[in-house]
Amino acid sequence: MKIGIIGATGKSGSKIVTEALNRGHQVTALVRNKDKATKLFGGTVTIIAKDAFDITKQDLTNLDVVIDAFSVPLGKHLAYQHIDLAVHLVHLLRETETPRLVFILGAGSLQTDDGLLLDQLKKIPDSQAWIDTPESQTHELDFLRTVTNVNWVGVSPAASFVDGPKTDYALGKDHVLYDANQKSEVSTGTMAVAILDELENPSVHQARFTIRNK
Amino acid sequence: MKIGIIGATGKSGSKIVTEALNRGHQVTALVRNKDKATKLFGGTVTIIAKDAFDITKQDLTNLDVVIDAFSVPLGKHLAYQHIDLAVHLVHLLRETETPRLVFILGAGSLQTDDGLLLDQLKKIPDSQAWIDTPESQTHELDFLRTVTNVNWVGVSPAASFVDGPKTDYALGKDHVLYDANQKSEVSTGTMAVAILDELENPSVHQARFTIRNK
Repeated sequence: MKIGIIGATGKSGSKIVTEALNRGHQVTALVRNKDKATKLFGGTVTIIAKDAFDITKQDLTNLDVVIDAFSVPLGKHLAYQHIDLAVHLVHLLRETETPRLVFILGAGSLQTDDGLLLDQLKKIPDSQAWIDTPESQTHELDFLRTVTNVNWVGVSPAASFVDGPKTDYALGKDHVLYDANQKSEVSTGTMAVAILDELENPSVHQARFTIRNK
Repeated sequence: MKIGIIGATGKSGSKIVTEALNRGHQVTALVRNKDKATKLFGGTVTIIAKDAFDITKQDLTNLDVVIDAFSVPLGKHLAYQHIDLAVHLVHLLRETETPRLVFILGAGSLQTDDGLLLDQLKKIPDSQAWIDTPESQTHELDFLRTVTNVNWVGVSPAASFVDGPKTDYALGKDHVLYDANQKSEVSTGTMAVAILDELENPSVHQARFTIRNK
């Protein structure tokens, strides 16, 4: 497949690039910083260097999949860019089936037994410093759920999203996943594997799924 | 004031242009069809002719107010453009106070004693043919309510929005307004007056208000 990845040099994006290349897919990295991408990926990927909000339909039409792994640093006032970019991409691809759009969301929009995880997070002391990001990504999913004329899927990590290698994994829909020890964790490597598995064998359409390490 | 109006040649927009000019404001019409705007307004307004999605921050920065009176014909599959354009405009003006953004919404997002008016509308036979527009404008307001870093205000008409001259008016917030005869109606002329009154004496911030003819 031809897979475009926005935010390809980031925490989620870079692992997805590696996994996609390992499986023989053609990867296009849509990034702001060309030098960083060239250093990371060398000649293994096509690089389109531009601000994500300047991406045009033309940039996307040759791709089978576009993965939005864009993220702004936690605690910055730019968290709103998550939803703004989602709408920008959706708008470019309204009334199309291809490329498929994959949105890496946060865990905040997942349900717990006591309501939205976001609302639990808000109760953490000093969460004000970083709550904007899970909040914006929750709004992003709220928006996506209104979209019926684009081929989209959302992906949320488990409550804890850590850098690390791939493991076996379990899948869920809209509830936070816990293992037998009440641990809710997924690694960047596992996320990448689960996303590539979903791309190669699509099973979720216009909905969100979530992943935990086994 | 310098007032920009997107959709200036439309049902709402054209009455707002007239009312603004009558009050001595400088009007910029942001329209797709230059000839139509020239025919309607002659040399009384500045015309910027472009697709609304191609509007740039540059187009807006000299304005005090931007009114989004954009609308697609009822029953077209393009209703999603209402929310897409709202996000486009909000994105251009994130982290600014000026220009103030005014969104002309539908009545569907208003509350009734039995829940959202939109849900009542859905029960009307054959409403499928036109429900996309009030639905998209309801999503538009849902999105706007997440926006805290732009100076925006939303305006909903009464349940019935008819072409007609200005009358006295009554204002409300999030509930459908009815007169003593249980009639809920506002005219385009009254909408224009109420909007200009709000622009000259701002009282609503990051919220929606509604208007009915008295």
